[in-house]
Amino acid sequence: MAVKIDDVARVAGVSKTTVSRVLNNRGYLSEKTIKKVHDAMEKLNYQPNAVARQLYKKETKLVGLIFPTVDNPFFGQLVASLEKRLFDAGFKVLIGNSMNDSLKEETYLKELISNQVDGLIVGAQNRGIDEYHKANLPIVAIDRVMNEDIPVIASDNYMGGKLATELLINSGATHIMNTDGPVNLETPAHRRREAYEDVMKKHNMIPHTYLVDFSWDIDRKKQEIEKMFAMYPDMNGIFVTNDMDAALVWQTATRLGYQVPEDLKIVGYDGANTTRVLLPELTTIEQPVEEMSKIAVDTLIARINGNETPLEQIIPVKVWKGKSI
Amino acid sequence: MAVKIDDVARVAGVSKTTVSRVLNNRGYLSEKTIKKVHDAMEKLNYQPNAVARQLYKKETKLVGLIFPTVDNPFFGQLVASLEKRLFDAGFKVLIGNSMNDSLKEETYLKELISNQVDGLIVGAQNRGIDEYHKANLPIVAIDRVMNEDIPVIASDNYMGGKLATELLINSGATHIMNTDGPVNLETPAHRRREAYEDVMKKHNMIPHTYLVDFSWDIDRKKQEIEKMFAMYPDMNGIFVTNDMDAALVWQTATRLGYQVPEDLKIVGYDGANTTRVLLPELTTIEQPVEEMSKIAVDTLIARINGNETPLEQIIPVKVWKGKSI
Repeated sequence: MAVKIDDVARVAGVSKTTVSRVLNNRGYLSEKTIKKVHDAMEKLNYQPNAVARQLYKKETKLVGLIFPTVDNPFFGQLVASLEKRLFDAGFKVLIGNSMNDSLKEETYLKELISNQVDGLIVGAQNRGIDEYHKANLPIVAIDRVMNEDIPVIASDNYMGGKLATELLINSGATHIMNTDGPVNLETPAHRRREAYEDVMKKHNMIPHTYLVDFSWDIDRKKQEIEKMFAMYPDMNGIFVTNDMDAALVWQTATRLGYQVPEDLKIVGYDGANTTRVLLPELTTIEQPVEEMSKIAVDTLIARINGNETPLEQIIPVKVWKGKSI
Repeated sequence: MAVKIDDVARVAGVSKTTVSRVLNNRGYLSEKTIKKVHDAMEKLNYQPNAVARQLYKKETKLVGLIFPTVDNPFFGQLVASLEKRLFDAGFKVLIGNSMNDSLKEETYLKELISNQVDGLIVGAQNRGIDEYHKANLPIVAIDRVMNEDIPVIASDNYMGGKLATELLINSGATHIMNTDGPVNLETPAHRRREAYEDVMKKHNMIPHTYLVDFSWDIDRKKQEIEKMFAMYPDMNGIFVTNDMDAALVWQTATRLGYQVPEDLKIVGYDGANTTRVLLPELTTIEQPVEEMSKIAVDTLIARINGNETPLEQIIPVKVWKGKSI
């Protein structure tokens, strides 16, 4: 009598679903579980049938998106664009906002995997999530270094940082600050700061980077920005790493009696749709959201179909000319 | 021999899944299909077993959200808040952005139903979607009139329109315009215009409402707003039905040489997080996004659990004091 999947499950002491997941290398599985199933298969000399395996390995046409929050002009535009392109490619979208909460990100990931998504696109900000490594799923990261196996799509952060710093220097600023998120967060966005430092040094100016964490609430950010103004009274130019923070810097400057751009020149980063409507006066580095979204979806679909993809794809940025320099 | 679900399916000429959907009053079903299954059950004298029915009626812990787009400060904040509350209540979220596309909204709805979501929260802008009526699903609408069976959660649009118009009159404006979306779109947001008209008439002023469709792109909106300025050269006050359009009105006014608020006073509507950071100078009516989100999720969960809920829940608004009046 042929050995069945039920026999493997019984001997391994796991469910039939778990056995089929191990057979298809899908879903969240501990090393221990995989070993138990493999041991049982060996013991019973179980030969999985290829047709049966295909039946278990059904496509769900679901893709999970894990991003900090859609309550932000850049991520709102990015998620809307990803969702539209995935819809056009026949996928439905499960969404998780993981802002400020690495436990939530971990829970999302486990639930999305158990929900049998066909793939994930991730731009979340939390560190050290082991589950991504264990996921056995096609994953694409946007502006986030995950691990060496996961392809990253990013805007040309170095070019953006260079453009921003040169704009400030060419417009006459002499004491130029930069803001950045936590250094230990592995994101290509830090290249903006590297470019700022390189350009500053090339012009014999001293770079100063001030920490403003993306996940802080507005009040905390306002307090930290006020501290920065107190610590650096000579500041007459600043490259802020995202537009929401740039708006807060501008407001603080106005409240403290600075004229923008006469006393303080400001360059932001992101240039999302909403920001260009609500605050078109802000000079900023415009991320190529549509292109990033297109390449991310194309790369994910290629991965789902088992094709090789580049591990890093960098897309050029451009300058949005406002009135803040 | 007891009649089985397979027999009903065979006689009705439909699948077992379809029979179980009819039994559980779930999923998308045409009247014709329902009749075929009922006829077969009658012919065979089939008595569905309550326990078996429960087995088919399994919860998926998935909720679908259908909104115009998360690339907008108000809907981005609302969807982020809904997702967070649904996550805390143990639900995962499927999202669809239906902007500008009633066919897409219809496709979402069919797919979400076939994906067996436990319920839907809908704030989409398209009209005449029969599927909502046929869905046999717990549904909650935000700021959208669906049909008499579907509960609506809305901010107090009438109060908001009244506050906005009174602010403009009290600050000295004498020729006050209003913008609104298409009249044939059934949304409680039209009550903003009704309140504007009532307050204007009470003050012996002539109300003028100008159409700006929410789903137009930025360039189209800019063109229409320029036309409005040309048509109403005496305008010195305007109540704009959302903040993104209010920002465009402000920019057009500045380009045409108006000083805000000296020559033109502007009041917006929404007051979302992002808007209050990027354009805090805009005086606006702040929608209670967190409360709307909480009540929508509580109402949906009550419906999923088979409980009665109010058919309309209206939540008070407040004024955000900027510098545009």
